[in-house]
Amino acid sequence: MTGKKHKVTVVGSGKWGSTIAKILAENTREHPDVFEEEVQMWVFEEEVTIPKDSPHREALGDQTHKLTDIINRVHENVKYLPGTALPSNVVANPDLRAAVKDATILVFNLPHQFIDKTLEQMKGHHLPYARAVSCVKGVEVANGRVTLFSELIMEQLGIYCGSLSGANIAPEVAAEEFCETTIGYSPPPMDLDAKDELSPDNRHVINKQRQRKISSTSAELQRVPDDYPCVDERLLRRLFERPYFHVQVVADVAGVALCGALKNIVALAAGFVAGKGWGESSKAAIIRIGMMEMIRFGRFWFPDSVNQKTFTEESAGVADLIASCSAGRNFRSAKHSVEKGVSVDELEQSELNGQKLQGTSTTRAVCDFLSTHGKLDDFPLFNAVNRILDGKVSVDELPKLLR
Amino acid sequence: MTGKKHKVTVVGSGKWGSTIAKILAENTREHPDVFEEEVQMWVFEEEVTIPKDSPHREALGDQTHKLTDIINRVHENVKYLPGTALPSNVVANPDLRAAVKDATILVFNLPHQFIDKTLEQMKGHHLPYARAVSCVKGVEVANGRVTLFSELIMEQLGIYCGSLSGANIAPEVAAEEFCETTIGYSPPPMDLDAKDELSPDNRHVINKQRQRKISSTSAELQRVPDDYPCVDERLLRRLFERPYFHVQVVADVAGVALCGALKNIVALAAGFVAGKGWGESSKAAIIRIGMMEMIRFGRFWFPDSVNQKTFTEESAGVADLIASCSAGRNFRSAKHSVEKGVSVDELEQSELNGQKLQGTSTTRAVCDFLSTHGKLDDFPLFNAVNRILDGKVSVDELPKLLR
Repeated sequence: MTGKKHKVTVVGSGKWGSTIAKILAENTREHPDVFEEEVQMWVFEEEVTIPKDSPHREALGDQTHKLTDIINRVHENVKYLPGTALPSNVVANPDLRAAVKDATILVFNLPHQFIDKTLEQMKGHHLPYARAVSCVKGVEVANGRVTLFSELIMEQLGIYCGSLSGANIAPEVAAEEFCETTIGYSPPPMDLDAKDELSPDNRHVINKQRQRKISSTSAELQRVPDDYPCVDERLLRRLFERPYFHVQVVADVAGVALCGALKNIVALAAGFVAGKGWGESSKAAIIRIGMMEMIRFGRFWFPDSVNQKTFTEESAGVADLIASCSAGRNFRSAKHSVEKGVSVDELEQSELNGQKLQGTSTTRAVCDFLSTHGKLDDFPLFNAVNRILDGKVSVDELPKLLR
Repeated sequence: MTGKKHKVTVVGSGKWGSTIAKILAENTREHPDVFEEEVQMWVFEEEVTIPKDSPHREALGDQTHKLTDIINRVHENVKYLPGTALPSNVVANPDLRAAVKDATILVFNLPHQFIDKTLEQMKGHHLPYARAVSCVKGVEVANGRVTLFSELIMEQLGIYCGSLSGANIAPEVAAEEFCETTIGYSPPPMDLDAKDELSPDNRHVINKQRQRKISSTSAELQRVPDDYPCVDERLLRRLFERPYFHVQVVADVAGVALCGALKNIVALAAGFVAGKGWGESSKAAIIRIGMMEMIRFGRFWFPDSVNQKTFTEESAGVADLIASCSAGRNFRSAKHSVEKGVSVDELEQSELNGQKLQGTSTTRAVCDFLSTHGKLDDFPLFNAVNRILDGKVSVDELPKLLR
């Protein structure tokens, strides 16, 4: 009765996008009953010269090649994920519209600054009943509003979109070091009503508030045709879970996405404290306080849908926060700025070639947002990070500001 | 109407005991309206030779001295907390019974292996209405039962006892690096009934289930006389909170104590994973999974009193777990054992002079306990750590065992 198979496309091919494509392609091979084997990966085309020490130098020579050609010939993204073999059923495609055309499952995994333009190009060129998962990090905070990228995808394309986030440092996942991730996904009502064979697990995942929220946009959403397997928790596990990559599915799409954005503010704070030479007790306190403010923020803006447990018990929450406060770029840069006695802005100029850290822009946007809503005083850590970034308070004042 | 002042005694004077004595003495000075200034600290007497490079060498000469004499003369515990000045109102006392005799507040802070003998000596030599806080790490697991040290103190001395635990690495706290701690304390009913001036905060802290549990032993508990300030959340904050040491008071005494014991099992697991060279994503996953098993354990044995939030939101829970999985001895030894390819038992012999890690004995005791109750399969991480310690499975099998 499940006559058709899902066709999966990854939109994006950076370090994390290529890693996710690898995982998905491993799984489509393992479950040929529900998925087409081939996984299309949309690649923003560029010319790449094979490095002298590359093991592919012999096969490819020393001239430049199109990145898609390289990936399809040697099954490695030599530019963004060198050293990791991609399954041969990952097919790089430079044509966005062609790559997404027949996909019933779209996995978005590209830097947030490219998402608007990408969605614009995709409009009307994808299946109207496709389902999506966003691995895009961050949220859009502007004009007193917070918008999740999953919401943006739903609005722009008229398809349902969940979110994926977790303690997943891409090269570690690519190397198949054990980790976990969280997928926020509550199947839209029309998918559920159409199916009888829903697993109890899947019913369990449905969060009433969230469902109500989706219902408001449901008019535009189209049902996945009955001859496809239902896109539910079980299917998402089959698609994303590997022996080295464990998946939890929760209904709280907003919480999952928010965690991935707000953690960077906390990572800056943890870096400041580490830069002072304070020990693990201090860092642990900052992580705890930061997590509580992340929850408060989620409850303020998404009171109906955010579940505290996403923050305190899931990989997207507490685990990603821990990893980001130990190994992330925001943490390291903030630590370095204190050690060198320069501002983070100066450090971005002198050491990151003017590239902005995600944490600094998120901190400023979030604090502007909170200020607009008169809520800044409820978030002493976020506020303190913002003021440290602006040189208005010193790290030494943190304990007092957090009391 | 609060005519009398509380007299505080610390039972124990190791690294952490001396640090806590410093904090308490700073606060008794700051709040002379409710506390006697002097804080007695019971010291297990020993003869100490002043090291050549000690700044106290000139004052004390090169002969040996009694540790209590040194502390009372130079206001430093040169043996266990060298380099930290103790307030002069910390008074070291080698006579346990004399030290506790008039204390209305007893703070227990000594290694768990000395607690039985110490309580035995104290019996009948303390105020019957004293109140206690246990900073003793660990729990007793034997004969299919889990006993908290706070429970042991209540039973042995017939006085109410709470617990304190948190992400508090003693030298960091002694150096006044910012951190937080959690005190589990629900004032026993007779204290509450006697008082009109209870703060709403304190009422808030009362957890009905816990209160019921305490009531079963209440018959023996004596009320704190009315002319003392009530030992409630506010008083505990005044006694323990410093600008660099923030305190949360919760009602869940058992949860606070359990966290401090069970975290060591998780720290071993985190160390194993780090020893394999797996990254921060793996460690974060282990911490998350470990925390969930800690909660499950708490709910199994203390179903009425343990609050999940103690584990996921308090310093005693998630924060201490994070710190212990980065800097603790259990973490480092487990990491080292995998790197060297030797068992933890061998490492204890060769590098720790046969001294046992707290994590190894806790793991074995907890798994024996779970096995006795037929619950071991519900705790795959704890079980896996135990089997790795016993050489029955390898660290590489962890992801499979945790799936």
